Amino acid sequence: MSTSAVSSGRLLALAVLRRSLDHPAPLASIRARLASKRRRTSSGSASPRCAPPVAMSHSDRTGEDGVVDIDLLGSPQSPTFGLDTFGDLEREQAADADGPLIGHPEAIRQVVAEAVLADQVGVDFFGVGEHHRPDFAISAPDVVLAAIAGQTSRIRLGTSVTVLSSDDPIRVFQRFATLDAVSRGRAEVTLGRGSFTESFPLFGLSLDDYEVLFSEKLEIFARLLREEPVSWEGSIRPPLEGVSVYPRTARGLVAWVGVGGTPESVARAASYGLPLVVAVIGGSPGQFAPLVDLYHRALEHYGHATLPVSMHSPGHVAATDELAREQMYPHQAAAFTRIGRERGWGQYTPDQFEAGAGPQGALFVGSPETVAQKIAWAMRTLGLSRFQLKYAVGTLPHEQRMESIRLYGTEVVPRVRELLAAGG
Amino acid sequence: MSTSAVSSGRLLALAVLRRSLDHPAPLASIRARLASKRRRTSSGSASPRCAPPVAMSHSDRTGEDGVVDIDLLGSPQSPTFGLDTFGDLEREQAADADGPLIGHPEAIRQVVAEAVLADQVGVDFFGVGEHHRPDFAISAPDVVLAAIAGQTSRIRLGTSVTVLSSDDPIRVFQRFATLDAVSRGRAEVTLGRGSFTESFPLFGLSLDDYEVLFSEKLEIFARLLREEPVSWEGSIRPPLEGVSVYPRTARGLVAWVGVGGTPESVARAASYGLPLVVAVIGGSPGQFAPLVDLYHRALEHYGHATLPVSMHSPGHVAATDELAREQMYPHQAAAFTRIGRERGWGQYTPDQFEAGAGPQGALFVGSPETVAQKIAWAMRTLGLSRFQLKYAVGTLPHEQRMESIRLYGTEVVPRVRELLAAGG
Repeated sequence: MSTSAVSSGRLLALAVLRRSLDHPAPLASIRARLASKRRRTSSGSASPRCAPPVAMSHSDRTGEDGVVDIDLLGSPQSPTFGLDTFGDLEREQAADADGPLIGHPEAIRQVVAEAVLADQVGVDFFGVGEHHRPDFAISAPDVVLAAIAGQTSRIRLGTSVTVLSSDDPIRVFQRFATLDAVSRGRAEVTLGRGSFTESFPLFGLSLDDYEVLFSEKLEIFARLLREEPVSWEGSIRPPLEGVSVYPRTARGLVAWVGVGGTPESVARAASYGLPLVVAVIGGSPGQFAPLVDLYHRALEHYGHATLPVSMHSPGHVAATDELAREQMYPHQAAAFTRIGRERGWGQYTPDQFEAGAGPQGALFVGSPETVAQKIAWAMRTLGLSRFQLKYAVGTLPHEQRMESIRLYGTEVVPRVRELLAAGG
Repeated sequence: MSTSAVSSGRLLALAVLRRSLDHPAPLASIRARLASKRRRTSSGSASPRCAPPVAMSHSDRTGEDGVVDIDLLGSPQSPTFGLDTFGDLEREQAADADGPLIGHPEAIRQVVAEAVLADQVGVDFFGVGEHHRPDFAISAPDVVLAAIAGQTSRIRLGTSVTVLSSDDPIRVFQRFATLDAVSRGRAEVTLGRGSFTESFPLFGLSLDDYEVLFSEKLEIFARLLREEPVSWEGSIRPPLEGVSVYPRTARGLVAWVGVGGTPESVARAASYGLPLVVAVIGGSPGQFAPLVDLYHRALEHYGHATLPVSMHSPGHVAATDELAREQMYPHQAAAFTRIGRERGWGQYTPDQFEAGAGPQGALFVGSPETVAQKIAWAMRTLGLSRFQLKYAVGTLPHEQRMESIRLYGTEVVPRVRELLAAGG
């Protein structure tokens, strides 16, 4: 995650927006997808460089079938709250900091149990991220989410993120449309490029194609969202000629775009009319205001109504600030030191942790009151519709994750709602 | 499904086996996978043309962890019984034979409900097949199975089949290893080439590569089953160089090979030491005896212990023979006439149905007693360890499918066990 990419702020953002204006993109009505579903017009005639945008509708204005109700995703006035995990592995013995990790199957079942608890304590969204490394158990998020769907009835289920660059956009659509069916309309997918690169050699892809793989696959995916026959031509695969993809969904599939700090990615999400998740795992949430501003202006430019922005950040909740920090620090330090070794960063330090845990840092760690205050501040600062706490922190034990989830659902979320309501 | 391929019987089978003897394949001990997991020897040094075979173990002889217990899959002495579906769509109004079909989401939820009932009435296995057509709702079997896993605790969950040729073997392994975790060891995957070809253009593949795609992907998959670093080189993707794939499973993943009537496919399944599912949807089960015989001789040749053979055949159970046939016929006729149009077959006729429904045909339709007698006969004739009834028949209504499942679990299966025990 790069915060430097946004450091030059508005100037860079404006330049990107200006550049993106050079791409002619068709204006879209807010009911474009619904209308297109009804008219059954062919999307095959559209220019292959400019996908027909996908649009979503507010339920209060339509109440119609066949269109995604974006109010389910949250709004600044009525936000939603989520929890994210990558299926991190705890130690077999918590006390033995160098001991063996638990097996992947057990870690996956812990995630299912955590999601069931999140559903029970009123959390709105549960997201699982995809990795292809021994230290994370989840490489097939949709399968984990479908198991959760079978044991919950309310919580929305998505990814944080699905690495679209190294997947097949048609398979991704099929898997999440199927998840939407088994969960009765609770599926969401967040498409991103991921911050790890293991999936490229694994699936026979070259990192040289990092950009074209994502952009062409996102283009295909955006067309699939219309649930009409798709025609497309590009460089990464043979052309699609009037291809239909099944299963269809009842009301359309919710797809977000997940970004780190790259303005180009933000402008692209806006051009497709897709809601945005910003991963803020370093620096300060406030530094992302120019990016969020760019997103809203780009949405307007492309003729889309306003859409939700969510933020994904790591954290941990416990009874007191002291306990939460004490529990989180060793696992956060070990995880960042391990990953840092691969990326040439230095050792993770107590100072880094303190900066993140401070009032404007990117770590949401502390007592329910501390975390609630900080989330409310970040949501106000960025005008967020959703906040997603990445509650799993390396080897932090399942038992402590469960307590963090319980406190998040029963104390943090109600308190944030209260603070936001009071703040106008 | 071709029965002509087996019509020349033993001679052809022997020729195939003789041809397959020309491929040098390493002998395997029955505990090869377990042993290899323990020794952590590298599989990278093996010849790229000859995969290390995968072996399974009988629980009564080992009881060890880390190895698939094939007795869970059934044996001729203690067979298991399954149900299969592709997620066929019924009509919105059963009485309106030309009316609209229900939506895919509802059809998928019907499949989940059918699996839950199958679990409740004691069926051992539930398999869902993958298609990419509007008339079948299931294109992502693993997601459907994971939802079922979340609502069941006993029934084993697999595919009938997973079209490996047009999928990524690494993704398939990841998805089913994840299913194995969420279902606590109940996952199975059946790898096949499918009898439809829609998936080839959909995923950018050429039918010219039909054979090489399957054979190289099966080779990769067989290596993945060892759950060790994999090295491999071939023509369909860049080489794999000591790649590890996650998640790991607790006791190994069960993988079958599904075949139509091709002796080469049977010999190949045996060379990898993988159990066999034979799809018998035309002709008579008896005609498949030479194929099954070839499989057993090929297993012996490759140094594998005996492995289960299963048979997948269509059918329908109702209170009486008359009712079952009356209910099944119009849907079977409509489905085969529709598919026949695509493949240049003639109209499906009542005579065809009668031949299939007769004592030695491939349709298992009738009262519980009739169907039980026929299954027992087929299992004895072929020495089967498992029988899988493809109970969904085109637009046959969900309600009739549910009654068929109930009768299958509560009456047919117990009666088959009784008949087999009595017959020695």
